Order: sequence, then structure tokens, then C-alpha cells
Amino acid sequence: MLGNCFRNVRTTAPLVHNITNYVTVNDVANILLACGGSPIMSDEPEDVEDITSICGGLNINIGTLNQRSIEGMFRAGRKANELNHVLLLDPVGAGASALRTNTAVKLMDELRFDVIRGNISEIKTLALGSGTTKGVDADVADAVTEENLDSAVAFVKDFAKKAGCIIAVTGAIDLVSDGEGCYVIRNGRAEMGKITGTGCQLSGMMTAFLAANPNDKLEAAAAAVCAMGLAGELAWERMQEGDGNSTYRNRLIDAICHMDGDVFDHGAKYEKR
Amino acid sequence: MLGNCFRNVRTTAPLVHNITNYVTVNDVANILLACGGSPIMSDEPEDVEDITSICGGLNINIGTLNQRSIEGMFRAGRKANELNHVLLLDPVGAGASALRTNTAVKLMDELRFDVIRGNISEIKTLALGSGTTKGVDADVADAVTEENLDSAVAFVKDFAKKAGCIIAVTGAIDLVSDGEGCYVIRNGRAEMGKITGTGCQLSGMMTAFLAANPNDKLEAAAAAVCAMGLAGELAWERMQEGDGNSTYRNRLIDAICHMDGDVFDHGAKYEKR
Amino acid sequence: MLGNCFRNVRTTAPLVHNITNYVTVNDVANILLACGGSPIMSDEPEDVEDITSICGGLNINIGTLNQRSIEGMFRAGRKANELNHVLLLDPVGAGASALRTNTAVKLMDELRFDVIRGNISEIKTLALGSGTTKGVDADVADAVTEENLDSAVAFVKDFAKKAGCIIAVTGAIDLVSDGEGCYVIRNGRAEMGKITGTGCQLSGMMTAFLAANPNDKLEAAAAAVCAMGLAGELAWERMQEGDGNSTYRNRLIDAICHMDGDVFDHGAKYEKR
Repeated sequence: MLGNCFRNVRTTAPLVHNITNYVTVNDVANILLACGGSPIMSDEPEDVEDITSICGGLNINIGTLNQRSIEGMFRAGRKANELNHVLLLDPVGAGASALRTNTAVKLMDELRFDVIRGNISEIKTLALGSGTTKGVDADVADAVTEENLDSAVAFVKDFAKKAGCIIAVTGAIDLVSDGEGCYVIRNGRAEMGKITGTGCQLSGMMTAFLAANPNDKLEAAAAAVCAMGLAGELAWERMQEGDGNSTYRNRLIDAICHMDGDVFDHGAKYEKR
Repeated sequence: MLGNCFRNVRTTAPLVHNITNYVTVNDVANILLACGGSPIMSDEPEDVEDITSICGGLNINIGTLNQRSIEGMFRAGRKANELNHVLLLDPVGAGASALRTNTAVKLMDELRFDVIRGNISEIKTLALGSGTTKGVDADVADAVTEENLDSAVAFVKDFAKKAGCIIAVTGAIDLVSDGEGCYVIRNGRAEMGKITGTGCQLSGMMTAFLAANPNDKLEAAAAAVCAMGLAGELAWERMQEGDGNSTYRNRLIDAICHMDGDVFDHGAKYEKR
Repeated sequence: MLGNCFRNVRTTAPLVHNITNYVTVNDVANILLACGGSPIMSDEPEDVEDITSICGGLNINIGTLNQRSIEGMFRAGRKANELNHVLLLDPVGAGASALRTNTAVKLMDELRFDVIRGNISEIKTLALGSGTTKGVDADVADAVTEENLDSAVAFVKDFAKKAGCIIAVTGAIDLVSDGEGCYVIRNGRAEMGKITGTGCQLSGMMTAFLAANPNDKLEAAAAAVCAMGLAGELAWERMQEGDGNSTYRNRLIDAICHMDGDVFDHGAKYEKR
């Protein structure tokens, strides 16, 4: 079922506009190509409306934001909303600085997002005005575990309802909810945390999944999360002695490149609550 | 013959100034080092004139352009012209937005380029004021094929004459013309389209090739195109089961790193019309 | 002894704020994760004070500087000084442009750095107001060799004394001095010069080493230099036929990822003068 969301990316090749940080942008572009989408990057306010108009989705990632790119986010986001394009927010570092937190909050106020995807600390910051973001990584104290799973699911459902969009919290256990149902996903490996930008890559890919599955957005978001985690597992199986996080990054993108609906269906580990 | 253009890059180690997008900039730097050149990046208007003065060539790539970097492009370009340095334009996404199209046109009006290198949709946009750029990738409808080759060669020759510089159109079949002769190049693999930035990498490398061969610019541009395509072929031969587009990117740069004039002469597939 | 400096990075996982160029930023992030640190990037003046406040060290790298990021460097640097955080300067391209040279000099005047790390041409520019920087690479004429080692050590000690901070000059032979002692380090391989950004990567990693060893900063800086050079050696041993500079880059970061205090102690080649 979720495998079809993947199949639809490969058959429709959605063009995704990314306003994203310069740290991980190359990997975002390559993973979008790997999954069957097509990436374009533009953050200049005078450029973004034209660019987003020819795309199927817009991925706004606030890492390495600046005053110019923030203006670009709002202009592109308004145009994407006007055209009913898929719109995703990745609030990188929300909670780590006032500018990041305030920008994320203002973007949520003024734009209509389909999905907000972040780690638990970033999402808690947006939901509760608190959370203990440790730089761009989630704080261990916030982590979703089997022990606190029920309350974490309730928290994500509740915030999705309030925010009026899908919330995707990724970590050891991933949660994706539209306020009614909640996918609980157990793909992935801890070693993915040693690669910079797996979250950014997932946000780019998720935007493509939603653009390719406009009538099944919750399933599409969950499928993107499964695909990323499964790629982390398959990539790990191919690691050889001496390979480290840089090679792991390449193998992860390679794994997406080779994944198809059947591989996905065989490896995806999720339940719906 | 074209192999000597490659040999000259390794013996002269040209320093290339790149004003290029932040998506693929790392790969541009590494492929310049791989081919025997030396890269430097700078886009701040206050910095670019000094930087370009110590280089042998300037590569202007308009992907992820912004108002500041556009000013940098004009200032650096004027200085490069003044010093008779090699000057190349890569009109990434011309046709995809008004800002990109207009910036490319204005750069062509105010600066004297040695080469403009793009995909067929970008070049058609500049030549005809039309073309159907699909984001940063060429539209299939525009593609150069064996069937429309004669008219495509005529089009490129004609535009080179009008523009007063070498035009390099890259795709399944590559065309490089100075208005008189036209190299038709059949190196490369379709899978290169799954790597972000092979065009950007080629533009950086082509600038080094021209800087190292100032009296044979048409041959130098054609040689850079052959080298990139041949690297794509050699890299593909080294792909192992499970390798995907991220590893292919590494192997492609590696192939340039190991290429020499003899490998080039053995593998280059071109004719002149 | 120096191996303990490495062990302390793995046990304390310092968060490092990087204001660094967009060419090599992804590799800087991945090598920081590889050595046990945690990277965050931010260059917007309105963002940098908050971000640097939650970190243990700040790495200022002036490659691809612009007017906005320069303001960010000063604001972040002043905050880092105020909080007694580790502060490092990487003067990329000092000597190649007036803006770069002047920015580096002004940063040294207004901020209190723990370390300045550069190639010999950049350091000579800062020390003597001269030097023959060739783009972002050191000029061969400036190189530290066994023949001129005594005078090079004296020069670095002298500049460290005048600058009031640790000076780390990296090249075929690396020198790290606080004005009193000087570590002479002979790890590394010439082929590392074919990878873009090994210097930038080292600066990021060195900031983590100092943050993890606040009472042994000279040893920490020397240890980071040894670790980088040793990684270049270990990575080279894993190179296979056909591998080039792009794969070498991945293997180098992988080697840091697998390095521990014992591997370090076994492979580090240094003496103190």
C-alpha cells in the first residue's frame, strides 16, 4: 500500500523546489534524483516565485537561513499556497536560536503547510514553545522510546490537529500523524545520526512523495520516512571493513537509487495507530 | 589532437575562478583538481576582481543566483574581459525564471564570453527567446537526436555566429561550435543525468581547458566535453552491484583524476562537421 | 599523550559552530561527526550569537566570505570571546585579495583567537604583510621543508608570540606553536592536496579538539593535525585501482570515523622543539 506511494514518485518524476541550507544541499539534490524526482534550488526573492510555479512541491528548510532567504521562503511559500502545491517545512534548529524559532512560527502562521518534519526537540519547540534542542540534533531527554510511545503518539496527534497539517517526527522511532491516524515506523539505524543531513534529505524526498500522491498525503509522508529508514538499513548491509560515515552517506543515497516498490514493501516496518 | 588539450591542463595547472551555485560547488572544485586545474570560489562583489585577476579563467554559473552574486558576476566578468582571461557562461535554468533568463541575456550583452555551455533548452531560450526548460533539466522535446542532428548542428552554428562565441550544447549528443566548424560528440551515458551537477562540473573543467589552450579554444571546449562523457563511461564500468548515483558521482570524478592524454585519445568519440 | 586529546573529543562530543565557506561545508560537517563532535552552521548576523552561545567552540573560515557573513563573523566572535569559548581562524585566501587579507587582519585585531590555522602562504601574509598566496593554495616557494625547517620553526614561534595565540601551519611538514614549544608533525600524504577542503576540514575538527581539551590547547591543536594527516595515510592504504580524489575524500573522513586513541598513538608522527 505505502509501496505504491514510492512507485508513483518514479512514474510521475515530480519537480521539487528546495529552499534549503548550503550544508547538505548536494545530498538533497542527489537523493531527489535517486528516488525519481527532480530537484531545483533557488532562494533569491526575485527568483523563487517563477521557480516554484513550475514545480509540484516546495521544501522549506531553515538551516543556514538568512534575511534574504527568509524573504524568499515567504514569497515562495505564498505562491505555492496560491497554486495549491505541496508545501513542507523542515524547522532545522528551531529552539536553538530566537531567529530560527521565530521564523518557523511565523512561517506556520502565514503559510498553509502540508507537512512539518523535524526531530522531536524541534517539534516540541513549535508545539509547546519549549524543548531542549541541542544545536541541530534532538536532545536525548526528548527521545521517543517504546516506553513513552503512547504519550508521544498522543502528543503528535494533538499537535497535528492544532497545526492543521501532517506532523512527522523522526528519530529512533518515527511518528507521522494527520491528527487522526498515526503511523509508527521502526525502520532506520542509529548510525544514520553520524551522517550530516539525513533529515534534510528526507524532507526533500518527502516533498516529492507528497507531490506524487496528492490524494494520499499521510501515506506519502509515512512512505518517505520508511524509505529513508530502509535505505539506511540496506546501505548498512553493504558497508565493508573500514567504511565510515562518508561512505555510508553515499551508500544510503545509492540504496534509494535502487529501491523499488517491491523492495519497499518487503522492508517497510510500520503500524498505524 | 584533442588529447593534447587535456595534456596541457595537467602541465599548466590553470587557476579557475568560479562564481557558481552552492548545490554542486564541491564537485566542481574536486573535478577541477582531478583534471589538473586549481579552483577558487568567490562571489562577493568586493572580492571578485582581486580573485579573478590572479586566475586564468572565470566560470560564471547562474544556478542559485542572488542579487549580490549577480553583481559579483558582472564585476568579475568585466575584470576578466579587461585582462583577456577566458570567460565562460553556464546559464543554469535560463527559461525557468525571468530573473535567470534576463540575467543570462544581460551578461551576454555586457560581457565578451569565450563559451556558453548549457543544455539544449537553456541554449534555445537564449537563442530564440523560447525553449521549454523543465527546471534545470532539458525538455525531452528539445533533445538533439540522430534524426534532427543536421538541423541541430545548423542551429548551434548559427547561434555561435550571432553570439560571437563558442556554443556548447550538451545532452545525449553534444555539439560544440564556433560558428564555422561543429564538433559532434557521442561520449557519455544516460545515467549521468541521475547525478546532480554534471553540467556544472563540465563548465568548471571546460574553463580550465580553455585557459590551458588559449590558441585552440574550440578544440579545448570539445575536449572538455569528450573528457566528461568518457569519464561517465569509464566510471560506469567500475560500478558494482548496489552502487547508485552517489557512488557514480565519486567514480566519475575519480575517472577524470586517472585520465591522461592517451586514455583520452583512445576513448574520445567525436567528428567535426 | 596526544592520543588523549582525541579520546576526549569522543567522550565529550563538543558542539562546534562553523561560519565556513559553502564549497567544503558538507565535508566539514561530516568530519566533525566522524571525530565525535557535533557541527552546526550559521552565518546570519541575527542568528550567530544565539547559536554560538550553545556551542563549545567557533570556527571562522573566510573562504567565500561576503559582507553579511563578515558581520556574522564579528558578532559571533565577540560573543564567543565573551563566553570564553574556543575560537579558531582559518584565513582562507589571505594574500589572494585585499578583502580577505583585511578581513583576517581585522578579525585578529578585534577578537582573541585560540588558534590561527592556515597554509604557509596565508600565515606569511598575516605575519609579514607579504607571502605569495596562489589562490587558496600555498605557493611552492613558501613551503616548509627539512632544509628550511629551523628557520620555519623560528618564524612560527615568533609569530605565535606576537599574535598571542597558537599558530598552526599545515603543509608537507606541519608546525604548531604557542610561541614557546613547537610541534613538528610529519603525518599526511601529498595526494591530500588533490582533495578540496582538507584544510577546512582540519579547522573544523581542530576546534572540536580544543573545545574538548580546554587545558591543553597546544596539544589539542597538534593532535588534530596528526589525526588529519594520519587519516590521509590510512585512507590511502584503502585506495583501490581506479579510485581517485573523490573516493579519497570519502575514505579520509571514514578513517577519522574509525580512528580511536590507540590507532592515533600508533600512527602519530611528531616531535616537539
